[in-house]
Amino acid sequence: MTNSINVGLIGAGRIGQVHAETLSYRIPQANLIAVADVFVESAKKCADRFQIPTVTADPQDIFNNPAIDAVVICSSTNTHAPLMTQAANAGKHIFCEKPIALNLAQIDSALAAVERAGVKLQIGFNRRFDPNFKAARDMVAAGKIGQPHLVRISSRDPEPPPIEYIKVSGGLFLDMTIHDFDMARYLIDSEVEEIFTSGAVLVDPAIGQAGDVDTAVITLKYANGAIGTIDNSRKAVFGYDQRVEVFGSGGNVVVSNTTPHTAVLSNEQGVHAPPPPFFFLERYLEAYAAEMEAFISAVQNDTPPPVTGIDGRIPVVMGMAAWKSYRENRPVKLSEIE
Amino acid sequence: MTNSINVGLIGAGRIGQVHAETLSYRIPQANLIAVADVFVESAKKCADRFQIPTVTADPQDIFNNPAIDAVVICSSTNTHAPLMTQAANAGKHIFCEKPIALNLAQIDSALAAVERAGVKLQIGFNRRFDPNFKAARDMVAAGKIGQPHLVRISSRDPEPPPIEYIKVSGGLFLDMTIHDFDMARYLIDSEVEEIFTSGAVLVDPAIGQAGDVDTAVITLKYANGAIGTIDNSRKAVFGYDQRVEVFGSGGNVVVSNTTPHTAVLSNEQGVHAPPPPFFFLERYLEAYAAEMEAFISAVQNDTPPPVTGIDGRIPVVMGMAAWKSYRENRPVKLSEIE
Amino acid sequence: MTNSINVGLIGAGRIGQVHAETLSYRIPQANLIAVADVFVESAKKCADRFQIPTVTADPQDIFNNPAIDAVVICSSTNTHAPLMTQAANAGKHIFCEKPIALNLAQIDSALAAVERAGVKLQIGFNRRFDPNFKAARDMVAAGKIGQPHLVRISSRDPEPPPIEYIKVSGGLFLDMTIHDFDMARYLIDSEVEEIFTSGAVLVDPAIGQAGDVDTAVITLKYANGAIGTIDNSRKAVFGYDQRVEVFGSGGNVVVSNTTPHTAVLSNEQGVHAPPPPFFFLERYLEAYAAEMEAFISAVQNDTPPPVTGIDGRIPVVMGMAAWKSYRENRPVKLSEIE
Amino acid sequence: MTNSINVGLIGAGRIGQVHAETLSYRIPQANLIAVADVFVESAKKCADRFQIPTVTADPQDIFNNPAIDAVVICSSTNTHAPLMTQAANAGKHIFCEKPIALNLAQIDSALAAVERAGVKLQIGFNRRFDPNFKAARDMVAAGKIGQPHLVRISSRDPEPPPIEYIKVSGGLFLDMTIHDFDMARYLIDSEVEEIFTSGAVLVDPAIGQAGDVDTAVITLKYANGAIGTIDNSRKAVFGYDQRVEVFGSGGNVVVSNTTPHTAVLSNEQGVHAPPPPFFFLERYLEAYAAEMEAFISAVQNDTPPPVTGIDGRIPVVMGMAAWKSYRENRPVKLSEIE
Repeated sequence: MTNSINVGLIGAGRIGQVHAETLSYRIPQANLIAVADVFVESAKKCADRFQIPTVTADPQDIFNNPAIDAVVICSSTNTHAPLMTQAANAGKHIFCEKPIALNLAQIDSALAAVERAGVKLQIGFNRRFDPNFKAARDMVAAGKIGQPHLVRISSRDPEPPPIEYIKVSGGLFLDMTIHDFDMARYLIDSEVEEIFTSGAVLVDPAIGQAGDVDTAVITLKYANGAIGTIDNSRKAVFGYDQRVEVFGSGGNVVVSNTTPHTAVLSNEQGVHAPPPPFFFLERYLEAYAAEMEAFISAVQNDTPPPVTGIDGRIPVVMGMAAWKSYRENRPVKLSEIE
Repeated sequence: MTNSINVGLIGAGRIGQVHAETLSYRIPQANLIAVADVFVESAKKCADRFQIPTVTADPQDIFNNPAIDAVVICSSTNTHAPLMTQAANAGKHIFCEKPIALNLAQIDSALAAVERAGVKLQIGFNRRFDPNFKAARDMVAAGKIGQPHLVRISSRDPEPPPIEYIKVSGGLFLDMTIHDFDMARYLIDSEVEEIFTSGAVLVDPAIGQAGDVDTAVITLKYANGAIGTIDNSRKAVFGYDQRVEVFGSGGNVVVSNTTPHTAVLSNEQGVHAPPPPFFFLERYLEAYAAEMEAFISAVQNDTPPPVTGIDGRIPVVMGMAAWKSYRENRPVKLSEIE
Repeated sequence: MTNSINVGLIGAGRIGQVHAETLSYRIPQANLIAVADVFVESAKKCADRFQIPTVTADPQDIFNNPAIDAVVICSSTNTHAPLMTQAANAGKHIFCEKPIALNLAQIDSALAAVERAGVKLQIGFNRRFDPNFKAARDMVAAGKIGQPHLVRISSRDPEPPPIEYIKVSGGLFLDMTIHDFDMARYLIDSEVEEIFTSGAVLVDPAIGQAGDVDTAVITLKYANGAIGTIDNSRKAVFGYDQRVEVFGSGGNVVVSNTTPHTAVLSNEQGVHAPPPPFFFLERYLEAYAAEMEAFISAVQNDTPPPVTGIDGRIPVVMGMAAWKSYRENRPVKLSEIE
Repeated sequence: MTNSINVGLIGAGRIGQVHAETLSYRIPQANLIAVADVFVESAKKCADRFQIPTVTADPQDIFNNPAIDAVVICSSTNTHAPLMTQAANAGKHIFCEKPIALNLAQIDSALAAVERAGVKLQIGFNRRFDPNFKAARDMVAAGKIGQPHLVRISSRDPEPPPIEYIKVSGGLFLDMTIHDFDMARYLIDSEVEEIFTSGAVLVDPAIGQAGDVDTAVITLKYANGAIGTIDNSRKAVFGYDQRVEVFGSGGNVVVSNTTPHTAVLSNEQGVHAPPPPFFFLERYLEAYAAEMEAFISAVQNDTPPPVTGIDGRIPVVMGMAAWKSYRENRPVKLSEIE
């Protein structure tokens, strides 16, 4: 076991700062010693806040720094694959936000670089580290519900992202449902083989004009015969709606939303509980910390990271299949995508 | 307003007895004065239990009885349409269990007879009268969730019916999902236009050998753009699982299962609540009574019954579309079925 | 077993009508054949509604009717004991609303008459028949929570009764807490030995001017060492608040309020569930029917009724002890009351 | 505003380590620079874990260190008052665990020293910082339930402390209920004037032999007329049971237990939720961090700490009144204790 791990952060935006905080305050054995951002002011602010000694606009400075053991890639999606390749070539272990890329050739090239270099790679599917979903998955894995027959995922954002983001994000199935595709694979021990998508533009016509949908139901057929269903909306006015269910031959497990507190008010109008947390930073704060702890621990103990490069690739394939199904209004096999 | 309504019951099986009890004890203005069953012993038992003066093996005796205002048809499915026609021709108002028939020509013929006769007809979609689902629908109708975008229905039986029943019932989509198709139409004010079905045999291979599925997810596209999803299983070991959700631009409404009591036990193993009621007779007892009260009230006050012949026809069309979609593995428009 | 039981109802007020409906529509083996009320118009209305053949202003007509097997006494409290005595002397089985009387000598005289006559007597502590409280008690009796250590009862009315009623009712501890005293005895198998009362006038000063309190906490010491606490309010604006908990060496059981339906609305303001039912007629409708079924069954099968004369007497003693404790601001043993 | 606060920790036991972790990882503007413990090995272990530069067996080394701005006192109860006095005399701001002392003269002497020195003092009533209780208090303070009439607190430990601890702790009312006394004052804006205690030994006879009780119900009369009730047990087998309710003229607010996750399992035996967290370190981890953040913030910004010396004194008086009430079996006014 290595005593401590020196980390370089690439990308000091919202999610980069979440990881910076975890690395600085929650993981004693990690040292965050450098931060890079093309907007160097962002990198500086982040460095100030978390007392990071080295600041740069150029990720190469991080790859070239021999003191750095691992990098955390939180830059924009289109840079993930090239940065991953460079980091691998520099012998750095890699934590990379999802998606790896929106193009399978780029993904495969980056994953090949990682494999050649023999470095560790963990993809940022944070929801696997949410204690609620993890409890459900553990119950399923322990056979508490028997053989899984149905998987249900409700995943709804509190508000749509900017239209500019939607134009480059790959759309709903690749920027949002991708998390649910990962969850669908995480909850039960079987792969999805076929996808059927129903999509609609009901929240905002501008989303449709940008070529995206804002409301969708996706049906999944698993190799083991189970059937899954995901429903998405870009806008749940009551907050970030994140619930799953797995139903099987021996029962079911249902994960409901978390709440900021348990105080329930009753008055003449009825019984009132608080809404779920607003969005991912509130709901998944613990999960973000836990995934980073798992990554540092894997590097430190030389064990396999819990979310692999393949785990990063498959949901992109599922997103592509979802789009193809939506456009052709027919079920699409994952094997059709390559 | 007529002072009291004389009723004849046709079919003294399980559901016939439920209606007999309601008519005998819960609706003062209804008099159950005759019962018919081809198994005359069943009719006799029912008559003994509820002090029904007239017993017969032949429904014609009921149609020929001028004292009878209305009939309640609870016999086997294949007799519904012909009995409905005969009842209409005899000028009796009709309450008929679902489905009207498994064949559209028969349904249309029966509905035409009803229309010619000008009698009232109510179809036995009891779940519309469940106070939980009704509360949800009323909230939707009152605009509490804004425009509906997603409809989710989980409907799972505690155990499969006998294989002999499955062979003649029309299968899952026509004997079980038919209730959910009705619910899908009841919850929001829009019609379903297209259906995509995923089905599997996961509960019992004998069900598959009988030509049926036991597990399914059905996706619905509504005319107003909303998307619905129904999931079914023939076997929920924890009890009769009956939940719905409608999600819209202004929020959502979620109906959870009822429970036999509210006593929750905490011990070293955790926190334990009672399972939902076992099956439809326990869960929907109040709904069965309420639908019959609504029928008697419609007859008595000469007002339209709340579940019409068309409401009985459309879910059969939906069941047929679901089967076609399952067999052809493609979305099927309801307009393809005729 | 007697084939059917002829019943006479004394008192056609609100609760009398509840019992009339149960006897008329829910219990086939009971025949409600006479109704008496000093306000004969009330008796007539009740008779019309439930088709009761005999109407009278004078309860003696019921006691003198040899066809009547059992009487149900729902008249005003001050008449309970003398009517019970007369009914017993006439050889009628007796169901009597609580309290038997507000004076122990009257209670003892009436109970002695019942004993001499050898008729059955059941006191109307309806909450014992509520499925929620019954489930809790059954769990306690089955040892699911080990030895009981703490009993907690919250019992709050939605609105105060008229001041005129309060002046003659015996006050909070004898008109309202009396039900909770019964519940305290029902939930665990031990008697209360000492009571300490804290009371206040916080809802309406007029209640204080009438010599009553409207808010109270009562502490109970049981013979087995367990400690109980009851809290009461005359006014819970959100509805009839009726909850209990028993905590013991092996866990606890908590009974929450029932709700009219399970539909929960989420919107920008939060998560909204329906309030509990408004008052006792909504909350305990099933319990009223069940207690009457139990009484008729006890008469028909010649078995002991489930709530005895002693069960009617002890809560009155507890109410008196509660008042004494409140007035003297000290714990009072039940043995001090006689 | 001071840029950063140097802190010395006195007492490196369980709760001392909780505070050390918060100071080290959660509060960037706090520097934990010294730790003292009479068991110097404990101090060393703590220093190793959190990289604290100075270790000592003698708290005087901390008081004498001019670089230290504030001390956190987590040593054994009997040392709290003298250490607080010494810290005040040395001009250090003070965070002190509860209780200040078990003797009012000692408390008053220590509080006088604090006042003379003009240093800040915060008492460790962590539950005020629990987001659930805070939400309830905020609703009450905002008038959401109108005027408060009833306060209910259930507070039950998962297992009794060692008998040796009980012998010196002041017993249940001073080592455990003291938190509930603080909560009773925190939830509504009125002081308690009179206390009545019922206590019992039901969990373990050895607790009784040590002069303590293990089960209790305490009734509180507030100056504003409201009535409170606290129930305690040394042993809730299902986990740390921490719930409160405030009921008032406009409704009520109920705080239920937190749970480690929201995954609920349904199987043939029923519906199973996880038990509450085991004990205070699990339940109140966030609250411990929040109270320390509040203390550091008060020191840094020169604002009043949110839990004052008087807030530390009054619950001790209440504990003494509770014992007197228990021993004399009568209500005791707080004004009787001095």
